[in-house]
Amino acid sequence: MNTDLEIYRKQGLGKSLGFGKKPALIIIDFVNGFNDPSIFGGGNIPSAIKKTKDLLSLCRNNKIPIAFTRIIYSENQSDAGIFAKKAPKLKTLTLSNPLSQIVPELRPIEGEQIIDKTDASAFHSTGLIKWLIFNNIDTLIISGCTTSGCVRATTVDACAYNYIPIVVSDCVGDRAIGPHNSSLFDLEQKYSDVVNLIDVRKYLSGLVN
Amino acid sequence: MNTDLEIYRKQGLGKSLGFGKKPALIIIDFVNGFNDPSIFGGGNIPSAIKKTKDLLSLCRNNKIPIAFTRIIYSENQSDAGIFAKKAPKLKTLTLSNPLSQIVPELRPIEGEQIIDKTDASAFHSTGLIKWLIFNNIDTLIISGCTTSGCVRATTVDACAYNYIPIVVSDCVGDRAIGPHNSSLFDLEQKYSDVVNLIDVRKYLSGLVN
Amino acid sequence: MNTDLEIYRKQGLGKSLGFGKKPALIIIDFVNGFNDPSIFGGGNIPSAIKKTKDLLSLCRNNKIPIAFTRIIYSENQSDAGIFAKKAPKLKTLTLSNPLSQIVPELRPIEGEQIIDKTDASAFHSTGLIKWLIFNNIDTLIISGCTTSGCVRATTVDACAYNYIPIVVSDCVGDRAIGPHNSSLFDLEQKYSDVVNLIDVRKYLSGLVN
Amino acid sequence: MNTDLEIYRKQGLGKSLGFGKKPALIIIDFVNGFNDPSIFGGGNIPSAIKKTKDLLSLCRNNKIPIAFTRIIYSENQSDAGIFAKKAPKLKTLTLSNPLSQIVPELRPIEGEQIIDKTDASAFHSTGLIKWLIFNNIDTLIISGCTTSGCVRATTVDACAYNYIPIVVSDCVGDRAIGPHNSSLFDLEQKYSDVVNLIDVRKYLSGLVN
Repeated sequence: MNTDLEIYRKQGLGKSLGFGKKPALIIIDFVNGFNDPSIFGGGNIPSAIKKTKDLLSLCRNNKIPIAFTRIIYSENQSDAGIFAKKAPKLKTLTLSNPLSQIVPELRPIEGEQIIDKTDASAFHSTGLIKWLIFNNIDTLIISGCTTSGCVRATTVDACAYNYIPIVVSDCVGDRAIGPHNSSLFDLEQKYSDVVNLIDVRKYLSGLVN
Repeated sequence: MNTDLEIYRKQGLGKSLGFGKKPALIIIDFVNGFNDPSIFGGGNIPSAIKKTKDLLSLCRNNKIPIAFTRIIYSENQSDAGIFAKKAPKLKTLTLSNPLSQIVPELRPIEGEQIIDKTDASAFHSTGLIKWLIFNNIDTLIISGCTTSGCVRATTVDACAYNYIPIVVSDCVGDRAIGPHNSSLFDLEQKYSDVVNLIDVRKYLSGLVN
Repeated sequence: MNTDLEIYRKQGLGKSLGFGKKPALIIIDFVNGFNDPSIFGGGNIPSAIKKTKDLLSLCRNNKIPIAFTRIIYSENQSDAGIFAKKAPKLKTLTLSNPLSQIVPELRPIEGEQIIDKTDASAFHSTGLIKWLIFNNIDTLIISGCTTSGCVRATTVDACAYNYIPIVVSDCVGDRAIGPHNSSLFDLEQKYSDVVNLIDVRKYLSGLVN
Repeated sequence: MNTDLEIYRKQGLGKSLGFGKKPALIIIDFVNGFNDPSIFGGGNIPSAIKKTKDLLSLCRNNKIPIAFTRIIYSENQSDAGIFAKKAPKLKTLTLSNPLSQIVPELRPIEGEQIIDKTDASAFHSTGLIKWLIFNNIDTLIISGCTTSGCVRATTVDACAYNYIPIVVSDCVGDRAIGPHNSSLFDLEQKYSDVVNLIDVRKYLSGLVN
């Protein structure tokens, strides 16, 4: 990536955004089906879930508004479209399917928001934007999977809506490491800051004090 | 990518969509500033522009509705936000800047649609969706740059809106080949078909006859 | 309204759209809570439901794609915002509340789409646009309640997205007749055609033959 | 309206929202063509423009972010759709047409945002939502015309996005008084607060002190 990075630098891409004043945490698609290598999981997803457990505690302790997303298709699949044609197994992710449920170690608690979606971006055809506006959010801390899929699509949309997207590198995962790394590179160059859990911890402690 | 591809196949990703019945062509951000390696250009963008000249002729001959996009910020840059913070040079792309103009070899003609945008996706904060609906389009043939930027973001949104996205591999380009290839892989696995100019030619001749 | 109408005519408003080639039917918020005058019902809603029973049969017989909408807030009401502040009783309309269920005489059957929403417009934060695009719809036949509320907001959005909105005057109702009539006037002058059930019947028979 | 109002009260509609903490002002479509009774003007639009002059000064003095909207179709009208079919004269409102320009008494100054749109709602296919988010706005003070058209559609969308919409009754106008009054009633019952210029003055003085 060395030569690639040089091109991006020369063209003035990849500037840092910095954190804002009112963050929310979004945890994308960490559901059983994406933690199962025989369905949509694998790669570094398990380690990202483990780290996200700490991130979630940290955000709860700091009273940060928290949202979770899940992919949910209706039982009769009348809302399955092009995305589900590319990956037909998506259609099995209905509300009653255990594979659609958030992994036990990250289970939402009272007051946290669950956003069901049928597309990669958590903004598409959902109430996410309304929830962010209602909570006066300016910064979206992003965790979840897959880095090259729903995390990336959500980050690109967050940027387009003018939220500051902060992707937490050790809290996002993908089924394969090539696409994971490529997307982290693209995201940092063009759409978001990419930080690690330690950086988030520092930011939140500064925010509180 | 070999091992990666195996994971995707095992999980049933990467199914083919096939072309639909009513295509439009969109040519993304082939403007002077993205054809200039000292601004946002370089890599395989020049060869993609050359091939797109043929694609454009082909679509004009087949009376396919055609849209072009440009990144345009207002002269006072009051519409510049997070995306322009990551890449500050974007803000110079105003309506009066020659760098914002579509490259001469692809100049739009009467009746073709020009869509000005401030974000990666051509769907974001623009009238693109309205134009597609008004023209009863079901298939979006996609050309332009950059593959890992505006082409990808537009393709992901086209998929989410249930248009069939057809990315023409030899008519899309990027400033660096690593991100170009990674995004073509991701797009084909999750959001669109990836074909070449010859495939489009075959499809359009079948559509007419 | 006579003098008002004259102004609109003189300014060239109120032109007729005509039906398109590929219609869908949408039945808006005909749920128990809007058929109960002690909750959100009253006025001419009961008669509009009765007529909609015929409209629904007609569309089913003609194999027209059919969507129903309901207002549904999450059980913990974390998705209730400004709209629910204006009308706090909305928050009681959760998935488990019988008042949120579609009235028995219009019960959806297999293959029909149910769209849950938290706002007036059926397009806002829902998958409606995706469903319309996936089904290649160009015309939206609109029934439901309230005329001055969710029917009007949905019609205005349908127009903005370039669907041909056809409001069926005897199949829409409101809790009060003043707002019902005012909105039918506005809709016909600026956003949609306003026809009656007999007109729809004629159109559909022409479409089939 | 007396009996109507009773129904709305009984059903718990029409609750007051109160102002928020970070307002923006939006002035909708006060352009020459809507101030000309032979085009789209008439009614109480001239008096609303006069009052808006005071509102604009007030907001400028209080450093409130300010946006103006205009209806602008492209010179070749390739972006004209269903809305322009209902009112064909809209298509004459191109960038070069003096009728599309903001009325001289309200001319924007440096730093104020101009939003061009092709639909009733200022949110539809525009960057308005991005501008509001970037400026951390929670309250939208709304002035302009027509009350039953673009003002209402924008207010309904502001509500759906969870902004607090504040419609300033003496700063909005319509070509005919019937639709003006009906829409103010509906807006206050279901989507926004309706206040007058004096109320806004009080609010802003409280905000500053």
